[in-house]
Amino acid sequence: MVVTDPDVLGGYRQDRAFDPDAGTALALVRPTATEQVAAVVTWAHEHRVPVVPRGAGTGLSGGATAQDGALLLSTERMRAITVDPVTRTAVVQPGLLNAEVKRAVAEQGLWYPPDPSSFEICSIGGNAATNAGGLCCVKYGVTTDYVLGMEVVLADGTVVRLGGPRLKDSAGLSLTKLFVGSEGTLGVITELTLRLLPAQPPQSTVVATFPTMTAATEAILAITGALRPSMLEFMDSVSINAVEDELRMGLDRNAAGLLVARSDAPGEHAGHEADIMLAACEKAGATEAFRTDDPEEGEAFCAARRFAIPALERKGPLLLEDVGVPLPRLGDLITGIADIAERRQVLVSVIAHAGDGNTHPLIVHDPNNADETARAHLAFGEIMALAIGLGGTITGEHGVGRLKKAWLPDQVGPEVMALTRRIKDALDPYGILNPGAVV
Amino acid sequence: MVVTDPDVLGGYRQDRAFDPDAGTALALVRPTATEQVAAVVTWAHEHRVPVVPRGAGTGLSGGATAQDGALLLSTERMRAITVDPVTRTAVVQPGLLNAEVKRAVAEQGLWYPPDPSSFEICSIGGNAATNAGGLCCVKYGVTTDYVLGMEVVLADGTVVRLGGPRLKDSAGLSLTKLFVGSEGTLGVITELTLRLLPAQPPQSTVVATFPTMTAATEAILAITGALRPSMLEFMDSVSINAVEDELRMGLDRNAAGLLVARSDAPGEHAGHEADIMLAACEKAGATEAFRTDDPEEGEAFCAARRFAIPALERKGPLLLEDVGVPLPRLGDLITGIADIAERRQVLVSVIAHAGDGNTHPLIVHDPNNADETARAHLAFGEIMALAIGLGGTITGEHGVGRLKKAWLPDQVGPEVMALTRRIKDALDPYGILNPGAVV
Ligand SMILES: Cc1cc2nc3c(=O)[nH]c(=O)nc-3n(C[C@H](O)[C@H](O)[C@H](O)COP(=O)(O)OP(=O)(O)OC[C@H]3O[C@@H](n4cnc5c(N)ncnc54)[C@H](O)[C@@H]3O)c2cc1C
Ligand SMILES: Cc1cc2nc3c(=O)[nH]c(=O)nc-3n(C[C@H](O)[C@H](O)[C@H](O)COP(=O)(O)OP(=O)(O)OC[C@H]3O[C@@H](n4cnc5c(N)ncnc54)[C@H](O)[C@@H]3O)c2cc1C
Repeated sequence: MVVTDPDVLGGYRQDRAFDPDAGTALALVRPTATEQVAAVVTWAHEHRVPVVPRGAGTGLSGGATAQDGALLLSTERMRAITVDPVTRTAVVQPGLLNAEVKRAVAEQGLWYPPDPSSFEICSIGGNAATNAGGLCCVKYGVTTDYVLGMEVVLADGTVVRLGGPRLKDSAGLSLTKLFVGSEGTLGVITELTLRLLPAQPPQSTVVATFPTMTAATEAILAITGALRPSMLEFMDSVSINAVEDELRMGLDRNAAGLLVARSDAPGEHAGHEADIMLAACEKAGATEAFRTDDPEEGEAFCAARRFAIPALERKGPLLLEDVGVPLPRLGDLITGIADIAERRQVLVSVIAHAGDGNTHPLIVHDPNNADETARAHLAFGEIMALAIGLGGTITGEHGVGRLKKAWLPDQVGPEVMALTRRIKDALDPYGILNPGAVV
Repeated sequence: MVVTDPDVLGGYRQDRAFDPDAGTALALVRPTATEQVAAVVTWAHEHRVPVVPRGAGTGLSGGATAQDGALLLSTERMRAITVDPVTRTAVVQPGLLNAEVKRAVAEQGLWYPPDPSSFEICSIGGNAATNAGGLCCVKYGVTTDYVLGMEVVLADGTVVRLGGPRLKDSAGLSLTKLFVGSEGTLGVITELTLRLLPAQPPQSTVVATFPTMTAATEAILAITGALRPSMLEFMDSVSINAVEDELRMGLDRNAAGLLVARSDAPGEHAGHEADIMLAACEKAGATEAFRTDDPEEGEAFCAARRFAIPALERKGPLLLEDVGVPLPRLGDLITGIADIAERRQVLVSVIAHAGDGNTHPLIVHDPNNADETARAHLAFGEIMALAIGLGGTITGEHGVGRLKKAWLPDQVGPEVMALTRRIKDALDPYGILNPGAVV
């Protein structure tokens, strides 16, 4: 179970934030059962050895980055799932990928909504640990909305069960919800009880391109003001071109922005809602806008949007932001980002889960160019400061991890930091769980 | 602001659990602003004086019961609200009633879903503190699903702001969610930021009566297996008769059980879903079943169901349960409750938010009959033990308060109690916040 081979360890050194400051772990453990996790954490607790929990390592904030002298605890071999169609719940081990959960429940005619763009490569445990969002959360909420219960190994190795397969449970503090989004700093999630929905109805899709960012933003606000789309995604010109370079699907390379909007209202209502969204895009000045009810065609545009990060990663290393603002400030955020990019002379591509005001400005930079890298890092901080100034958040869904830790106090203030610290100290007095992340 | 008049204090001694062990408070404070709450709590913290937060006092678990020597902190004068239709959020002070929140947002064409039966008399702050449920949560979830942010006064008087008007926010621990459902033991909620939905579409309603409990339970499972109703409520024969005694609306006094089921699917889909539910009731052996699309008629049956607790309260004091089980165990729960009632020779009426397995067995007893009262209390505990044995919860929505505290360890186990205690001690080291509740 314990691996110390440096070659193997090397593959677990970083997550998708590619933090250059990653350390060298003591060893890697890949338990298959809760008791093994408990044994590892108990040992680590006794010997004051740090533990870095790790799912699939797709995190974008350096939360799973190896630390010097730490144990890497990968859940990749904890892959069991049972689905109960009667209670519409699933009990899953953390290492299963999000896509595998979706598939297993779909076989029973059910649906697990949360759908990070990385759904085919990220683990369900990592999703719970980061409270992952995705494309459908504009209508269906984020991971925490689907976690009814969990099993967690605490810092001293104690195993606790929280919540369970009940839609309503007010017994005691809302501990399940506290562990969702705790990024491995409070405990290791070893099992999740997930709430499921009936299969999603067929979706109607609208795709529209815009000559200006302003027009696209106007369309976004008009759509969310009129109804609740099941998806409302945005790509800017840089990301459209990066995706088109790879996929060659005929995206309009001259557009300033592209929206993919969907409705899953029952029956013909999906089409009605799509038509309302189409009209909103046209009114906002779309250069081209169309509706498709063909599932494959609709899915192709969603896949293109999901492919934006990987496509841009091929151009060079990215500094990945995840800033969110209250929706009416979206235009200000996008203008402000353009200003920062110009001032710092860096390329910033903006993609967004537009419907919930959550954007991903992606700062492309050449790591061999020290000056550009420095400017990219300045822009990275300035964009977070901008979001905070607009009443927003430094992270809508990727978590704070190690990369955004320095900005967390600016967003939440010293009192909330002190409160966070009190909870962390109460639950992990020796600070062995994912040290350096979040707090 | 400070009231010590015993007559006034008397009116704040109990909540709707009418705990005979209520104590005598030192004084009552009714602040109008956060700073006043902070000043009161700071003073209490310095002088180690317990503080019992109180909303509208409709709680059913003794959570707001006066304690000897404690300050009662009533939020009833904190009643401001602002609604933002663009972000679909509302910022409210805790003392506003749930119904007042619903009305204020409805004026902007919006909807705040959570609807405890007590919605016309309970406060929104009390709803957040208990994570209140209601009738629509079978489809729309509970209070925590609608709380995006809050302002809380901590045990030492520090004011913190958590979350905010953003649909997605992963910055730091999920503290907002921890405070929801904390029943006044971790802090005093002084402001809430609520997520709102577009106005609910018109509902189609099905009402059905059943000759046996078994038939009713069968219909419930058939309905939830087929679709997601916007409401699925149950009343047994005792509660049907109690309501009929008061409202005289022609309910079938001979029925063993009555279901009220609704659909709010868009357009004609509400009717389609209602027809599916109607067929399920008929197939399960309903004696009478009909569908109505008339909003007033539908609402009359919902009001009848909501009136069940007050109607039974007129028969005599109730011991109010709130046990929930995974839906497939609903039949076992109901049979088991009947067994307990027979063995203990007490009258137990069962009403339920049937669609999410959350039942309210109401134990009617004569407080002047010591023997009956003793038997009622035995049954009270046995019903909770039964629910735990069926993989359920001792409280689906009312909270643990003081009345169910003794059973909490049986449900969650010693490790979760220890974890709860650690968080409580970290946040309220002197134990001044609502002492005796939950932990
Ligand atoms: C191309 C791409 C697109 C993406 N799109 C999205 C998106 O749309 N929405 C979104 O939310 N995210 C997105 N992400 C980010 C990432 O996929 C999510 O954060 C995901 O939830 C991480 O899961 P993981 O299994 O890879 O976790 P890891 O990266 O392994 O870990 C993430 C964090 O969780 C902790 N952790 C992992 N497992 C456990 C456990 N069992 N117990 C306790 N702590 C644990 C780790 O310590 C770390 O802090 C994207 C990433 C990529 C590469
Ligand atoms: C007829 C009837 C029907 C009911 N139906 C339902 C139902 O369907 N669903 C349901 O969930 N409940 C129901 N209830 C129970 C009750 O109405 C809810 O628990 C409600 O949320 C309590 O709100 P309140 O303002 O009356 O709180 P209170 O009774 O005043 O207090 C409840 C708890 O919250 C704490 N508290 C109150 N305000 C604050 C604050 N601002 N900050 C911190 N702590 C605070 C108190 O200390 C106490 O522990 C019903 C009650 C009645 C009488």
